Amino acid sequence: MSPAELRVISIIGVPEVRPGDDVGRVLVEAARKQGTALQDGDVLVVTQKIVSKAEGRTVRLSSVEPSALARSIAAQWGKDARHVEVVLRESKRVVRMDRGILICETKHGFVCANAGVDASNVAEADAVTVLPEDPDASAGAIRATVLSLTGVEVAVLVSDSFGRPWRLGTTNVAIGVAGMEPLIDYRGQRDAYGRQLQTSITALADELTSVAEVVARKADSVPATIVRGATYQRGQGSGKALLRDLSEDMFR
Amino acid sequence: MSPAELRVISIIGVPEVRPGDDVGRVLVEAARKQGTALQDGDVLVVTQKIVSKAEGRTVRLSSVEPSALARSIAAQWGKDARHVEVVLRESKRVVRMDRGILICETKHGFVCANAGVDASNVAEADAVTVLPEDPDASAGAIRATVLSLTGVEVAVLVSDSFGRPWRLGTTNVAIGVAGMEPLIDYRGQRDAYGRQLQTSITALADELTSVAEVVARKADSVPATIVRGATYQRGQGSGKALLRDLSEDMFR
Repeated sequence: MSPAELRVISIIGVPEVRPGDDVGRVLVEAARKQGTALQDGDVLVVTQKIVSKAEGRTVRLSSVEPSALARSIAAQWGKDARHVEVVLRESKRVVRMDRGILICETKHGFVCANAGVDASNVAEADAVTVLPEDPDASAGAIRATVLSLTGVEVAVLVSDSFGRPWRLGTTNVAIGVAGMEPLIDYRGQRDAYGRQLQTSITALADELTSVAEVVARKADSVPATIVRGATYQRGQGSGKALLRDLSEDMFR
Repeated sequence: MSPAELRVISIIGVPEVRPGDDVGRVLVEAARKQGTALQDGDVLVVTQKIVSKAEGRTVRLSSVEPSALARSIAAQWGKDARHVEVVLRESKRVVRMDRGILICETKHGFVCANAGVDASNVAEADAVTVLPEDPDASAGAIRATVLSLTGVEVAVLVSDSFGRPWRLGTTNVAIGVAGMEPLIDYRGQRDAYGRQLQTSITALADELTSVAEVVARKADSVPATIVRGATYQRGQGSGKALLRDLSEDMFR
C-alpha cells in the first residue's frame, strides 16, 4: 500500500454569476484559465451561492410583503420582517426559534438556520439568496455540462455551510449530489483486526465539501473547488440520501 | 491571487500502538519511512483510536461489573451490559436514549453516540477504547514531540467520527487541538461586495479532520494524515473551544 494523497485546488477568477448563466461552463472556463484542467474522477464542489444566483434564486427584499407572523417575529428580535418572511416561505417547519435565530426545515428537508436564506456575497444591497429549488438537479446539470465540454466524468457536490447542535461553528455539507454515492456504508465490513464494523456510515459527501471550504474561504468568495484523488463510488446518489429519516431521528 | 492548493497525505505503515508508546515519535518515524517529511505549518490529524491505545485508554469488558442500570438498558435492547456500563462511566449525562442507541455527553462535554466508547480497530477481542482523558493535552504532547524530533511546528488535531441530528452518516470532528485556533470568526469581516458577514463562524478544525478522513478510511486503519497548505491561525486553541455553551445551545 502506498500513501493515499488528495489534492484540493480552488477555482479562482470566476466572474460574477447572473441569472441564466451556465455554472458548469463558467467553472470549466475559469479552471482552464488557471491551468487546472478537470480530470476524470475529480469531485467538483460548488457553493450554493453561485448556483442560486445562476438559477435566479435571489429575492429582493423590497419586493417582499411580510406576513403578520413574520412582522411579529421580526419585531420581537429586531430583525427585518421581509427577511423573516422569505425564511418562512422557504420553510416546511420551524424546528426551533430562540433569540431571533430560526432553525427551519426547508421544503427539501434540510434543517438549517434561516432555511438557507442568506444575504452574504450577493451584489444587490437588498437581496438575499434562497437555496436552489432542486440542488440534485443543479449538481446533475453541472456534471452534464462538464462532461459535454471536456469529456471527463466528475462528481458534483453543491455545498452550503450549516450549523449544528452541540458544537460551535458551521461546517460545509452537500445539499446537492451528482455522480457519486454520498455515503460510505461500512456495516458488515471488517476492521484491520477482523471485527465487524457496526454502526459505521460515513457522510463522505459532507466531508468532501468540508475539504473544499478549507481552501475556499467565505470572505474570498471562491465559488468552487476541485478535490482530486478521492476514492468514491460512482452512482446515482442524491443530497436527499444524506437526510436522516424522521422516524430514525431522535432529535426531531 | 493564485489558486490555493491543499495536499492531504495519509501516513501508512504505522505499527500497532501499545500503552506507553509515544504517538508523536511513532508518526514521525512512519512519515519518514514513506518519504513524507513533516513541514512547518502542516496540520497533523491523528485518530482518537491510536491516542487512546497509547494512553492505555482501553477497557477489557471481562473486567467490568455492570451496574443495575447498565443491565436494565442492555436487556431492553439486546446489548452487552458491560459495554453499556463503560458508556455510562464515560458519561456526564445521557442526552437521548432510544432503540439501544445512547447519545451521551462525555465528561469532556462532547455529545456523541456511546460516549465515544468503541470496539472497532482494537486488537483484543473483548476490549473497547474510551476517549483520551484530555484530548487537548494529547494533541499538545504529539505536537511537542514532533517539534523536538524534527524541529518543525505543526498543528495537531485528535479526531473522532461523530454522528449528528438530521443528517445521516458520521463526519470527523476535532476532539483535541494543539497549535491552532479551531474556529475562524468572520463576524465583522466583509464579503466580496462589502457587506458585513453576520453569523459566520467556521469550524475549521472539524473541517480539517474531515479532510483527513477522506484519505484515511475506517477499514484501512490509517491512523494519521497530514494536511499541507491549509491557512490557519496559530494559537493556543483547544478542542473545548468547539463546544457550544449550554446557555447558547437550543438543542440541549
